[in-house]
Amino acid sequence: MNAGGKVVRPSVGGIIGEEDDPALAAVLGQMGRPGSVDLVPTPALLCDLDLLDGNIEAMQRTADAAGIALRPHAKSHKSASIARRQLDAGAVGICVAKLSEAEALVTAFEADAGPRVSILVTSPLAHLAAARRAAALARRCDLSLVVDHPDGVAELSAATDGGDPLTVLCDIDVGLGRTGVTGPDPALRIATLVEAAPSLRFGGVQGYAGHAQHVAGRDLRRSSVDSANDRIAAVVDALESAGHPVTTRTGGGTGTGLLDIECGVLTELQVGSYVFMDREYRDALGADPEAAFAQSLTLSTTVISTNQTGFVTVDAGLKSMATDAGVPTVIGHPDSRFAFFGDEQGLVTTSESWSPGRGQRLYLVPPHCDPTVDRHSRIWLTRDDTVVDVVAVTARGRSY
Amino acid sequence: MNAGGKVVRPSVGGIIGEEDDPALAAVLGQMGRPGSVDLVPTPALLCDLDLLDGNIEAMQRTADAAGIALRPHAKSHKSASIARRQLDAGAVGICVAKLSEAEALVTAFEADAGPRVSILVTSPLAHLAAARRAAALARRCDLSLVVDHPDGVAELSAATDGGDPLTVLCDIDVGLGRTGVTGPDPALRIATLVEAAPSLRFGGVQGYAGHAQHVAGRDLRRSSVDSANDRIAAVVDALESAGHPVTTRTGGGTGTGLLDIECGVLTELQVGSYVFMDREYRDALGADPEAAFAQSLTLSTTVISTNQTGFVTVDAGLKSMATDAGVPTVIGHPDSRFAFFGDEQGLVTTSESWSPGRGQRLYLVPPHCDPTVDRHSRIWLTRDDTVVDVVAVTARGRSY
Repeated sequence: MNAGGKVVRPSVGGIIGEEDDPALAAVLGQMGRPGSVDLVPTPALLCDLDLLDGNIEAMQRTADAAGIALRPHAKSHKSASIARRQLDAGAVGICVAKLSEAEALVTAFEADAGPRVSILVTSPLAHLAAARRAAALARRCDLSLVVDHPDGVAELSAATDGGDPLTVLCDIDVGLGRTGVTGPDPALRIATLVEAAPSLRFGGVQGYAGHAQHVAGRDLRRSSVDSANDRIAAVVDALESAGHPVTTRTGGGTGTGLLDIECGVLTELQVGSYVFMDREYRDALGADPEAAFAQSLTLSTTVISTNQTGFVTVDAGLKSMATDAGVPTVIGHPDSRFAFFGDEQGLVTTSESWSPGRGQRLYLVPPHCDPTVDRHSRIWLTRDDTVVDVVAVTARGRSY
Repeated sequence: MNAGGKVVRPSVGGIIGEEDDPALAAVLGQMGRPGSVDLVPTPALLCDLDLLDGNIEAMQRTADAAGIALRPHAKSHKSASIARRQLDAGAVGICVAKLSEAEALVTAFEADAGPRVSILVTSPLAHLAAARRAAALARRCDLSLVVDHPDGVAELSAATDGGDPLTVLCDIDVGLGRTGVTGPDPALRIATLVEAAPSLRFGGVQGYAGHAQHVAGRDLRRSSVDSANDRIAAVVDALESAGHPVTTRTGGGTGTGLLDIECGVLTELQVGSYVFMDREYRDALGADPEAAFAQSLTLSTTVISTNQTGFVTVDAGLKSMATDAGVPTVIGHPDSRFAFFGDEQGLVTTSESWSPGRGQRLYLVPPHCDPTVDRHSRIWLTRDDTVVDVVAVTARGRSY
């Protein structure tokens, strides 16, 4: 890694088939030189390396102090390089949302000749073909999967028969209703089936309160977290009473991590967005302790047209950032407003006191970091006005 | 290309660094075999090859009959393979929105040893570094660019000095206000500057009525198109009166193409979405003649959780499709509703008469095709239940 000093080799091992990109080559030739950030073709994701590392270290310290394991969710950054930074800081492993993300990251880790990594896929699989891919991947990493249906156990058992053992967790619905069993009885059935399968190992439970992450107001958020953890505790009690040890209780997110720690039910935190933060989290968390992480990710964009009154047009539109969480803010210009202006452009309002010129760069706080990162092939790591590294969004588009 | 008969070689030349994707390899091994569409890991973009080719041929026939040149916008598909199908059908060239798209597509065309392609970049560039990339690219394709500011001419002139000539069009604001000059005077200034630059050639004008494409109701849409074409005609008259021949007048889109033809101002159509269509166009165009193109693109998704009453959870969420244009529809189940369920999942409502099981595949009509395609690395080309080819989204994520 190129965490300090002058960088001589970019972390582009995982840059996906883009070696012949003239725009990339131009910046790589100047990497590490002051002012090189102005060479990055826009729209582009920039990440302040010191803020990123500060976030990674702060979350690790928080987890260590609480005696809880940290398993950051790589669905936020999808980058093997950033996952490696989290692992080097003390994370026990990583989460991914989809199997194809794990496949891409493991390939990148192997290319780096790094140690075997522990990976949890946090979404249930739902067919035998996927279970077979999981069985193949389990030979290349320490793989854990979640299930919320007896048929999921049967598929994993069939796919792994005679192969390396797979760790299986029971996914619990903690109020979101998206995936997971709805109470202790189906959890008991799943644990029993897993333990009866020679090639599976029952690892514990997962309960992710996605609905609680962006609840504004800490008391309301705490109430949602308490309710979610109560549901997890009820399932854990039933499982352990029936003789199924629940080693791992994994869950939590950036919006609720500190509250989850207070509850004391989880053994493992799945936080993801804390590495970058975004406008949506900033709006929801305000001055709450969960908002102590730095806004490290920005979207750099360039003014491309200035022929109208009251606004300018920039080169970042629907294709450059997530659109599910409203609009980005313009750093340094809180009175200015951004609006999407089609797939390829955005509109930024101007005023009598501020009207950026053609060619000027503006920096936006992305509305929602995870799906914004997934729009980009690379993240430029910066210090002040200098590009110090570039990392691939290794698992970009791997939603399957 | 693999347009007919049994396919023996996939068009994966441009599949971006994904050769080691186990999910891809599994399908390629069965490509051309009946039932192979069920092997495609979901979420996945499927495109019905016969419908795609039908759309390409129908639009070409329409343009030919009207005596207007067809320059399809590759920002919709971002695929070198699909662009090649359009060129083989008779298109004079392609459009792209951004320079990096052109760079990626030209690299793919070169790898295929195809003929030199004519490419128009439809967004103005706004700095010298981009102009230099354009000058380099002009050695590899017949490149046209648009400008809407005198400084854009100066940058292109400086970047190309002594190099291959670049064709420059004046971009006209036809009512959208996004880019373009606002009337004849700045257009005259730009044409004069272009003609004074030894390495630039004045090619004509562009006027794109993005605001008219999704106007519901053909009379309202016609009114918007008429107004846009009047603005183009006014600039063209001024330019030609001043001795600047306007060879090319390029513009139009899928929602207005037939109306643009009726106006008779444009010499070249930039239609893009007609290759795929989407839910947004279907809603706006209803039974209008512009809606005669087939819905060829679908998003395949799998039911992954069935533990709740009234809905199931599928594996396609915010990261798998555009979210700016509402939600997709569920093919074959018009009473069912889709809702986004976070980054990685969706919710599909069920009823007493229809409740799909865990593992079942559902097929969605994407809400907005262009930014949906940009979420995916590949498009699976199908006939009935058979994968007959897979094409790379060559310029995916190339928004810079």
